[in-house]
Amino acid sequence: MSIVTPITKLLNIRVPIVQGGMQWVGVPRLAAAVSEAGGLGILTGLTQPTPEALRQAIRETRKLTSKPFGVNITLLPTINPPDYAGYSRAAVEEGVKIFETAGNNPGPLIKYFKENGCIVIHKCTTIRHAKSSERLGVDILSIDGFECAGHPGEDDIGGLYLLARAAQELKVPYIASGGIADPRGFVAALALGASGVNMGTRFMCTVESPIHQNIKDKIVASTERDTVHIFRTMRNTARVFKNKVSMEVVRIEGRPGGAKFEDIRELVAGSRGRQVYELGDPDYGIWSAGITVGLINDIPTCEELFKRFEKGAQMIVSGLTSCVNIQDEPSRAKL
Amino acid sequence: MSIVTPITKLLNIRVPIVQGGMQWVGVPRLAAAVSEAGGLGILTGLTQPTPEALRQAIRETRKLTSKPFGVNITLLPTINPPDYAGYSRAAVEEGVKIFETAGNNPGPLIKYFKENGCIVIHKCTTIRHAKSSERLGVDILSIDGFECAGHPGEDDIGGLYLLARAAQELKVPYIASGGIADPRGFVAALALGASGVNMGTRFMCTVESPIHQNIKDKIVASTERDTVHIFRTMRNTARVFKNKVSMEVVRIEGRPGGAKFEDIRELVAGSRGRQVYELGDPDYGIWSAGITVGLINDIPTCEELFKRFEKGAQMIVSGLTSCVNIQDEPSRAKL
Repeated sequence: MSIVTPITKLLNIRVPIVQGGMQWVGVPRLAAAVSEAGGLGILTGLTQPTPEALRQAIRETRKLTSKPFGVNITLLPTINPPDYAGYSRAAVEEGVKIFETAGNNPGPLIKYFKENGCIVIHKCTTIRHAKSSERLGVDILSIDGFECAGHPGEDDIGGLYLLARAAQELKVPYIASGGIADPRGFVAALALGASGVNMGTRFMCTVESPIHQNIKDKIVASTERDTVHIFRTMRNTARVFKNKVSMEVVRIEGRPGGAKFEDIRELVAGSRGRQVYELGDPDYGIWSAGITVGLINDIPTCEELFKRFEKGAQMIVSGLTSCVNIQDEPSRAKL
Repeated sequence: MSIVTPITKLLNIRVPIVQGGMQWVGVPRLAAAVSEAGGLGILTGLTQPTPEALRQAIRETRKLTSKPFGVNITLLPTINPPDYAGYSRAAVEEGVKIFETAGNNPGPLIKYFKENGCIVIHKCTTIRHAKSSERLGVDILSIDGFECAGHPGEDDIGGLYLLARAAQELKVPYIASGGIADPRGFVAALALGASGVNMGTRFMCTVESPIHQNIKDKIVASTERDTVHIFRTMRNTARVFKNKVSMEVVRIEGRPGGAKFEDIRELVAGSRGRQVYELGDPDYGIWSAGITVGLINDIPTCEELFKRFEKGAQMIVSGLTSCVNIQDEPSRAKL
């Protein structure tokens, strides 16, 4: 079977589920598994140490799947910015046709991808940013609610509202990011006007995810109370797993007079987060996790997960038709 | 048409939409209009100055509708608690059969209503509270997400996640509260396993709502950025409209060393909030408002609103059946 929405046609995929572009997690094996299962796998550009390494990762992914996949380029607020242009050029030259962009000031990046005939999915946490991205020519918006892992913005607006608002305002198709990890959230997102969903945390906890088994087990054992916001006082809020390191960051941020980035730099180093995934100690550093850790109870293969979502979506929509009488053939809402 | 779910049967209503129990707003005219339109109207018990006045309000409502309606009793953290038992007895003696309870330590109240053969809907903001309410024998849970007006609890969990989690955990039917103001949110809630929705802010902005026209116009003109949390530092967080008074409360709470309730008592007085609704000055005091102020663009009658929800639900479910193929008749998900 298939689930047909505007984005399945645009992206040439069978099921409108996009894998989030997760740092250290979006590697060829996972991206290929998601694409093979029927969704859109995403290689995280900056997970590769250099543009040349990204070229190799793209080639490696192609060996694992002939289906479409994308590359994520996230523009981070950082002192020494990575070579975004170099990563982007490498991916375009390798023939990648789908990009996910996120972060600050994406205009030049979006322009480059569009000039090269690529499809751009851009992630936003507010309607006003989504509308300005529309004007930049993005093809698909990824509307990221308060529940998400990583950066939710500073407005704290949950997906249930934000997606319904997007339906009122947006012209291009949008996918729902943040807070979704099961077929109920998937169908709810479609009802809210989304053309599909983006999932990160759920894919972290699959067989093909490259992170250490201990961390997958930790996600299974966690609840929605096991994430916390850091960097809030710096207006660069990020939702991460609640552990010794993140709670120490929160403590330092809460000191009278607040904290400067220098005060926590050591604690939040990306290399320590990477070590969490490699060594399997959930307390070693900062790692992103969405509220959906509380919905996740197992570690399926991507193929099993997609089958579950497809069957679940069928069952839920069938249940909806039995409670909401649609026999008098009303006009159909745009989805 | 009708929309059939476990709660429409239990409550003997045509459409599974329950009006929230709003202080100063849940008066006979509004409750009767909601019930007449096909939902469950709710009289707010403590809006009446005495149990005897609640008796009169119940009789007044009966003159306006022969359909079922309920009474809300919210247990507030307060220095001089109202005569909860008196209000409850008055309503039971007047023959009310449906109660909505909310707040702290609802056990004795729920026991009293159940002993008197009433149906109890209890509002919770967490799964763990919902599960303990189940053990107290409530018939329906109202699962209230972070988006809601008034008290969201301290966990900050949006409805998109919380409702999907409820589907995993709860045995009794539940309705979705917080963040819902249009047919998309309604169908999304059903997809997330809810048997209906509770709406407060949306009903504030109807023709039959008793609040001043200026305040209704203010809601229409507002966005999701026009609410704010007060009492956060006192761990009794409440989402209210962002105005001069609430921002002053936030400022005082944020002072070095924090604030005591005494420091803000004058600002947050309920009498001032009541005056907002009566006189129409949105800056006069504290008044509750959900994030859905940003979804609300008009002031319909309750009947118009229900027609919109019924037609919208039909269209959205019809749209879902056209994108998710259900022709091979899978089993149906419980809703």
